[in-house]
Amino acid sequence: MERVGFIGLGIMGKPMAGHLIRAGYPLVVHDLNRQAVAELAGLGAQAASSPREAAEKSDLVITMLPDSPDVEQVVLGRDGVIEGVRSGMLLVDMSTIAPATTRRIYERLQAKGVEALDAPVSGGEIGAQEAILSIMVGGTGAAFERALPLFKLMGKSVVHMGGPGAGQLTKACNQIMVGVNIQGVVEAMALARKSGVDPAKVRQVLLGGFAGSRILDLIGQRLIDRNFQPGFKVKLQSKDMNIALQTGRELALPLLATAQVAELLKALLARGQGELDHSALALLFEEAGV
Amino acid sequence: MERVGFIGLGIMGKPMAGHLIRAGYPLVVHDLNRQAVAELAGLGAQAASSPREAAEKSDLVITMLPDSPDVEQVVLGRDGVIEGVRSGMLLVDMSTIAPATTRRIYERLQAKGVEALDAPVSGGEIGAQEAILSIMVGGTGAAFERALPLFKLMGKSVVHMGGPGAGQLTKACNQIMVGVNIQGVVEAMALARKSGVDPAKVRQVLLGGFAGSRILDLIGQRLIDRNFQPGFKVKLQSKDMNIALQTGRELALPLLATAQVAELLKALLARGQGELDHSALALLFEEAGV
Repeated sequence: MERVGFIGLGIMGKPMAGHLIRAGYPLVVHDLNRQAVAELAGLGAQAASSPREAAEKSDLVITMLPDSPDVEQVVLGRDGVIEGVRSGMLLVDMSTIAPATTRRIYERLQAKGVEALDAPVSGGEIGAQEAILSIMVGGTGAAFERALPLFKLMGKSVVHMGGPGAGQLTKACNQIMVGVNIQGVVEAMALARKSGVDPAKVRQVLLGGFAGSRILDLIGQRLIDRNFQPGFKVKLQSKDMNIALQTGRELALPLLATAQVAELLKALLARGQGELDHSALALLFEEAGV
Repeated sequence: MERVGFIGLGIMGKPMAGHLIRAGYPLVVHDLNRQAVAELAGLGAQAASSPREAAEKSDLVITMLPDSPDVEQVVLGRDGVIEGVRSGMLLVDMSTIAPATTRRIYERLQAKGVEALDAPVSGGEIGAQEAILSIMVGGTGAAFERALPLFKLMGKSVVHMGGPGAGQLTKACNQIMVGVNIQGVVEAMALARKSGVDPAKVRQVLLGGFAGSRILDLIGQRLIDRNFQPGFKVKLQSKDMNIALQTGRELALPLLATAQVAELLKALLARGQGELDHSALALLFEEAGV
């Protein structure tokens, strides 16, 4: 069995690492949060004091971090993964970050004979806990096959989307559709509410037709219940929409609706509502007296 | 059995009227298109030379017309339905029009002792032909019960949404969600295509998750096939988004994403592409070199 380095033991990374340990993989873990490291050590993982040490003591390194600068720092920075790798190793970045950062890291590692996969996930905290994540993977076929046994311990649907960056690109597509659809549902439900038509009835009747979607189902119910506890946080949806926009800019592609929703999410952040569920886009309509 | 006047024998109205005739209802039909009238006469309907005559010869009048001004003209105009009605009659407007027009017509008819229902449909040409339309109804409970046997001959899902205008309001909510979600899917699929990631694979993997929707399913497939033949026409989606915006304005509700998509649809109209399917929103990205 490959020795696995696991860096990033947050809400997502901790349960994901736990699945690997329980399957018998020898794990070397690292995180700035010492309590999370201690918890994994309690399950049998070895603690590393830096990303470099985690890389030195493993054959395959998984990163699960909040944002592009975190991954860049952990992999390419001082005492980073790149200082501890040997030729033939594999980096699997499961964070959701910019495809451009993913490609930069891929190229730097290639120069050291190290393969890399981008493998962002969807399914959230519950998906991580129950090992039912969707995993969208970019990289070579050989690297994908090598990591597949690990992916299967953490996710239910694992798809090889294409070459390096294709996983991140697919996740960006996902977040565009989710963010824009939420805004559409929010506007429709606000119109119903303010007109005096029962939003619960509107959700129910429209779910069966052309407007039917998981977002109408789940976010629609949140809007009816006025439940804005996360769920998926505004600050993460905002980060992901910015990644999509940045990617669009690099391709000279004007993502109009994406840009509009990204701007509304920024307004929520500025109001100090970044920790709420992304359905809190509805709160901007409260100001309009809905 | 009630004598039914049916005004508006277009793509939708003609098959809907046919279902009523086949169920044994005596029909009096009117349309400016003499060929459509002749077809229905061939099935056993009586032809009326004006909306007034159709009303005079029936107990319940159904209208199925393109837009608000058409319904206003046919019901309230010269030789209109209102000139032929008697107290105790019922008008059922199944067109998709502005809720404000619906309420105006309702009030004018009430003054003559005539009830009115707004009962817009979704499901399109095939839904009309196969009598599987979704019908969203606004008006009194008594009027709804009276029209229900007729609705059941034309639709599968029939829901009483609330008082006068509630049917139109629900349809507006539907069209907001459909239009905005299409734009999100268009932007995501354009990003995939331009990045070199297979849009068919993106559609397939994302259908199972949080981004899953009927629009991703059906419009996503259209974008992959480059099939922009209607379907639901740009000019109708544009009309319906304008109704939603107008309704929002009356309620002092700023429908941002709705307004953006409505503007993009107007750009398609200006390019002479109003007869294409609403998925043609993707064509605006062609200019961006996608």
